[in-house]
Amino acid sequence: MPATESQPYVPTHPDTAHRIAALNRNDKPFHVVLAQQFDRPTVDQLCQLADMIRSISGSRQGSQFLQTLLSHRRAMLYFIQPSTRTFLSFTAACQIVGMRYSSVRDRSTSSEVKGESEDDTVRTFSQYFDLIIMRHPLEGFAEHVANMLNEMPRTIPVLNAGSGKDQHPTQALLDIYTLYRCFADPRAAREEPRYTRNVFAGKTIAFVGDLKRGRTVRSLAYLLCRYPGVRLVFVSPPQLRIGEDILEYLSRNGIEYDVAEDLRSSIGEYDAIYMTRMQDEHDVAGESKAIDYYAYSLTYEMAKDFKPGLAILHPLPRRNELDQRLDALPQAKYWAQVRNGMWMRSALMASVFNVDVAIRDHYHAYYTF
Amino acid sequence: MPATESQPYVPTHPDTAHRIAALNRNDKPFHVVLAQQFDRPTVDQLCQLADMIRSISGSRQGSQFLQTLLSHRRAMLYFIQPSTRTFLSFTAACQIVGMRYSSVRDRSTSSEVKGESEDDTVRTFSQYFDLIIMRHPLEGFAEHVANMLNEMPRTIPVLNAGSGKDQHPTQALLDIYTLYRCFADPRAAREEPRYTRNVFAGKTIAFVGDLKRGRTVRSLAYLLCRYPGVRLVFVSPPQLRIGEDILEYLSRNGIEYDVAEDLRSSIGEYDAIYMTRMQDEHDVAGESKAIDYYAYSLTYEMAKDFKPGLAILHPLPRRNELDQRLDALPQAKYWAQVRNGMWMRSALMASVFNVDVAIRDHYHAYYTF
Amino acid sequence: MPATESQPYVPTHPDTAHRIAALNRNDKPFHVVLAQQFDRPTVDQLCQLADMIRSISGSRQGSQFLQTLLSHRRAMLYFIQPSTRTFLSFTAACQIVGMRYSSVRDRSTSSEVKGESEDDTVRTFSQYFDLIIMRHPLEGFAEHVANMLNEMPRTIPVLNAGSGKDQHPTQALLDIYTLYRCFADPRAAREEPRYTRNVFAGKTIAFVGDLKRGRTVRSLAYLLCRYPGVRLVFVSPPQLRIGEDILEYLSRNGIEYDVAEDLRSSIGEYDAIYMTRMQDEHDVAGESKAIDYYAYSLTYEMAKDFKPGLAILHPLPRRNELDQRLDALPQAKYWAQVRNGMWMRSALMASVFNVDVAIRDHYHAYYTF
Repeated sequence: MPATESQPYVPTHPDTAHRIAALNRNDKPFHVVLAQQFDRPTVDQLCQLADMIRSISGSRQGSQFLQTLLSHRRAMLYFIQPSTRTFLSFTAACQIVGMRYSSVRDRSTSSEVKGESEDDTVRTFSQYFDLIIMRHPLEGFAEHVANMLNEMPRTIPVLNAGSGKDQHPTQALLDIYTLYRCFADPRAAREEPRYTRNVFAGKTIAFVGDLKRGRTVRSLAYLLCRYPGVRLVFVSPPQLRIGEDILEYLSRNGIEYDVAEDLRSSIGEYDAIYMTRMQDEHDVAGESKAIDYYAYSLTYEMAKDFKPGLAILHPLPRRNELDQRLDALPQAKYWAQVRNGMWMRSALMASVFNVDVAIRDHYHAYYTF
Repeated sequence: MPATESQPYVPTHPDTAHRIAALNRNDKPFHVVLAQQFDRPTVDQLCQLADMIRSISGSRQGSQFLQTLLSHRRAMLYFIQPSTRTFLSFTAACQIVGMRYSSVRDRSTSSEVKGESEDDTVRTFSQYFDLIIMRHPLEGFAEHVANMLNEMPRTIPVLNAGSGKDQHPTQALLDIYTLYRCFADPRAAREEPRYTRNVFAGKTIAFVGDLKRGRTVRSLAYLLCRYPGVRLVFVSPPQLRIGEDILEYLSRNGIEYDVAEDLRSSIGEYDAIYMTRMQDEHDVAGESKAIDYYAYSLTYEMAKDFKPGLAILHPLPRRNELDQRLDALPQAKYWAQVRNGMWMRSALMASVFNVDVAIRDHYHAYYTF
Repeated sequence: MPATESQPYVPTHPDTAHRIAALNRNDKPFHVVLAQQFDRPTVDQLCQLADMIRSISGSRQGSQFLQTLLSHRRAMLYFIQPSTRTFLSFTAACQIVGMRYSSVRDRSTSSEVKGESEDDTVRTFSQYFDLIIMRHPLEGFAEHVANMLNEMPRTIPVLNAGSGKDQHPTQALLDIYTLYRCFADPRAAREEPRYTRNVFAGKTIAFVGDLKRGRTVRSLAYLLCRYPGVRLVFVSPPQLRIGEDILEYLSRNGIEYDVAEDLRSSIGEYDAIYMTRMQDEHDVAGESKAIDYYAYSLTYEMAKDFKPGLAILHPLPRRNELDQRLDALPQAKYWAQVRNGMWMRSALMASVFNVDVAIRDHYHAYYTF
């Protein structure tokens, strides 16, 4: 049944395992919709694949090889919600693996002005393209589309690039990839595969800011549950606390966590700090204005208390909660995080179309000694 | 002389044969502007070429071969009128035959805000691109541009993707291609070339809805005149009757037709039903509201009276005139019709640049036994 | 420090030589920001390279060769100021040398609506792309970005496609390329390299119209100083006179010039006439309306007084200051000028990434006898 702007799509089933099974059907393409779809071996392999793509694309020959992989596939980027970063990340990823793409970012140029339903718009896409990458304001829309396309004679995979305030699985994947690269011992890389050891065990990761409405934190928390021994601290004003459902999910998975309201007192304990901005575009009546968000900001003065190996992440865009003068510190990883997204999304697309094997073969033939 | 929004471009000559000659000049590129430009051998060959492109692009190697064909050509998609379906169909077609493209869809980002005439805008395109694909609200604009470009030192072909309420030739080509595929005996395909036998002879095709303002029906009617023995029924409310000029054209070409106001009574007689939506964006004073358009809708209940081999087409977007529950029936051909457009437009571009021969050669070398 | 719409970025240093040195650092990519960065050998080589690219792209094989050159590079076209011509010229140039690209043309779809600073937007681009081509309403913005990116761990080159009312260096390059082609003796081309002889010596070039606010004239004047013996005449209403800084620059470089208010009296003396439109979008209070701009128009009636070898240029868009009936004259070079821009920008991108050598090698191997 169609949803409205204020009414999200209701999941087809109350049980997540059941929903995941519908997205992972053997007789249908693999739809990337929920962070919970990714088990640890899959996450680890995607990180390794992202590293390989990064290496291979460093040369013109390597880049040209990668561009042959999906040159026979076309993607639709259906980005109805404003987004530059994620959109450009996906276009760059398409270009890296050679996919052609088109985009629809504005309903005003579309057939919807002639009264077409959004379902029909998406069905049309499925006739021209081999993949739909979508970012949508409505919670549950990507999942709805995946299930709807499974009923079409020509089914194509859906890749959720952010859907409502709930899920942003590719952001979670790039975040975990960034953390992996920060925590991994560079000396170990030569001796063992980089992404098999649980480098998260014993680490403390703080999430700071608007944890109630930031979907990236939610999706990342799901993925971190795959790494026993990690400790999560959720630092936010009381009005913007992380959802109870996430805390229950962590408990169920045996992950240690804390909920805190003060950032400064424990700043020296963190191995990673994941900053987020105030999502005041979701305000109903300007309620964010009453919050002292400065208390949830990382300032240049705090740097003296940072662990040397600290990794500062931020899904961006930032406002004042992350001081620009921190950019010059070695602990600032958020620009690398942006670039990591491009490699991770390339890896994900390669996997959806099963050309990951070709990449691994190429890598082992040319890049290992 | 420049036209205004409300005043269409007046054709350069009252005689259509004369206008066609100007578009088909031997010393100039071939401009695709009017459905009447296509004689039956040309239509048949385009259908066959579309089938070949469909087959070849099924493999990565085939797709890569097709993409070499026009990799040295660039197209401008000048789509000033809102359109998603046709726009994306053309972008996909460009990608299939390897053409690079750019697009202008919004006058607000263009030099016209600085006072440039639209003629100069198009002349500029002709310096950067090798083809202009255009969709425009003004009747006759594509023809005007074709004639104007014929006067430039560097002339490039024009492809009309919908111009005013008059013509939409590529839609007509994809419609006839879809009907051909529906009517052709699949067993015959192996023994004889598929698109030479007149499979339309003896068939009855109903056009339903807003026949006055839907340009697709007009363009398709022109093309169907190439197939003697076909019978056309135009079913519409009296206010939205098909134009008299079309009926005269049919008479002149010896095509049998009927005009009717009732859809339900003869539903079982039709071999194809071509549904159309109410084009109320062309209303001057909301006159469409007085029309009972439900009487010109195809409902799920009517399916029991359908011929088994019926083909339901719709140029889309649809509203309520075509019940979504019909999508699951084998008679529903409108989603296949969408996809057919992509193949037909690829074929058309290949023909405009004379690489159709290379496609035929490739096909016969690799895909026939 | 951030600038506002009305407040341009202040150059980092009062001395131009100092600013140029910052843009041309040996340890950083070459940023194309100011016309003054180009010395005569560089301009001449770019013209020659543009000619080679033009020749090579004439065949499918040649075009495919060119497209391999930068197929591993991606460009961001950040065009916040309305522009069709320059934007499309750059997209075509990217396609010619095989660069993938994405574009941002509208702040409303970008993360800036979420409160991101424009500096952060550009830093994000630098993570995904290998080149930023930018057109911006703010004077000095391109230079600011170049210097900012030089501080990032990953630095990419900036290409100024028009910044405020000050500089438009690629327009100046395509203008001088067009003049070169007009003035060069075609018979000489076979015996000597075309772009080494100073064909500008002894020529008189008139700039006509709104010389105060047209940045193209300013940038071109800088470049013409590289060619001793050229004479420049600046013809404009007194309110729209060329800036004193330009006249001083010419004097300092020993270039003869005149300032005039009457166009008609000396029309027969000019070897080139560079027309410009009234830039009334920069009006503060409609002051342009008081100016009789018709006196600075080129009419069809004036053609009888033209030198036979006259070259008429115009950066376009034009309004009434350049009669459309002149288009048919051999002296009308402004459409060729548009197309030259595409070749020159291709040459410039090839040079920024040091693949100009590969183009020269290819050219000498296949196109000289």
